Amino acid sequence: MPALQNIKVAVDAVVFGYTSKEGLSVLLIKRNIQPFKNTWALPGGLVGDDESLENAVQRELKEETGVNINYLEQLYTFGQPGRDPRNRAISITYYGLVKPDVFELHADTDASDVAWFNIKKLPQLAFDHAEIISAAHTRLKSKILYQPVGFELLDQKFPFSELEKLYMAVLDRPIDRRNFKKKVMKFGFLEETTEKQALEGAGRPGNLFRFNTEKYYQLQKQGINFEL
Amino acid sequence: MPALQNIKVAVDAVVFGYTSKEGLSVLLIKRNIQPFKNTWALPGGLVGDDESLENAVQRELKEETGVNINYLEQLYTFGQPGRDPRNRAISITYYGLVKPDVFELHADTDASDVAWFNIKKLPQLAFDHAEIISAAHTRLKSKILYQPVGFELLDQKFPFSELEKLYMAVLDRPIDRRNFKKKVMKFGFLEETTEKQALEGAGRPGNLFRFNTEKYYQLQKQGINFEL
Repeated sequence: MPALQNIKVAVDAVVFGYTSKEGLSVLLIKRNIQPFKNTWALPGGLVGDDESLENAVQRELKEETGVNINYLEQLYTFGQPGRDPRNRAISITYYGLVKPDVFELHADTDASDVAWFNIKKLPQLAFDHAEIISAAHTRLKSKILYQPVGFELLDQKFPFSELEKLYMAVLDRPIDRRNFKKKVMKFGFLEETTEKQALEGAGRPGNLFRFNTEKYYQLQKQGINFEL
Repeated sequence: MPALQNIKVAVDAVVFGYTSKEGLSVLLIKRNIQPFKNTWALPGGLVGDDESLENAVQRELKEETGVNINYLEQLYTFGQPGRDPRNRAISITYYGLVKPDVFELHADTDASDVAWFNIKKLPQLAFDHAEIISAAHTRLKSKILYQPVGFELLDQKFPFSELEKLYMAVLDRPIDRRNFKKKVMKFGFLEETTEKQALEGAGRPGNLFRFNTEKYYQLQKQGINFEL
């Protein structure tokens, strides 16, 4: 066991955004400090000595991107020696899924720029951040199969196809639509209203849906079991 | 962002053991250093500057308990300020499920004793280790619903009831036995042999079962979906 230890402790945030138009994206900052100066990276930084890990990741996210999120979930701790060229540093990573429109982006402190990048069009990334995003995406894909998502991402009332789109965007694959609808309705976290959606094309207008808040949060705790 | 940082980085291991006789247990050491001297705790310790997190937890486990395990999975990182009375210390925790009989226990370095404790009869524990064990147990319960377990824990051939027992011990609740058998057989990771089990009581002897190795490891990767 080492008597002295020289390891830095950092946190990084993988914030996923979803809109039905843009699909799934990731919030990145452009570093204005070395190493990897001018390279895109995840928002994050060192933990304060008296600061909880959750507070640290929220603070760094706020400082570097202007984004305030207090419901990030811990993902994984990356600690391979050599992942930071300066010195040994481990990163406790967090992730979350939000609606990008509600946030105003503002780069500051260690960031010279901040932007949402489509998950399929990520730029070159600093450190092992590409690996971290990949791990977060894998976790998110598995998470939406055991917890309902969408409440904070979709409008209050929406056509059923919007929920399908969300699931397909996160899973990055087609789903069995008939089976999907049957299962969702059986879980009971969604309700069909009698309102019709506004017609855009020539199709028959379907009813709008809304989340059953109580059931939704109950199933988030209890877990669901989607086999899509 | 703090210019200087004074946070220690530790790893701790939650090693679960399972036998059909004893049920689910946890491997603990008795600390022979302060703080919490003579109190039971999880095996673990500080990470070396050039050591991966996985190597650190394996080394600490080996040093303090004599147990060699190279397939522990990362659980969660605990980092609340104040969790260690000496100084700020975060712990990256790992967990695994093994067959206790194959290990010879040997306490050394920071441990004066080592033993398996039934999960329902845990002693007073140092630091936040009770919380860590509880989180590991929750994770294990959820894990066995999406990955088959048992290959390393049961005999090569066993009565079906042994698998039921294992699942009930880990989940800590009864299961719907008919439904369980139907699902297990449908997944295909278990095969019925034509050999009968040796009779202990007056019951009708059932056939013995064995794991289909190929299917078992395929389903470990691919995931299953048990609703028990």
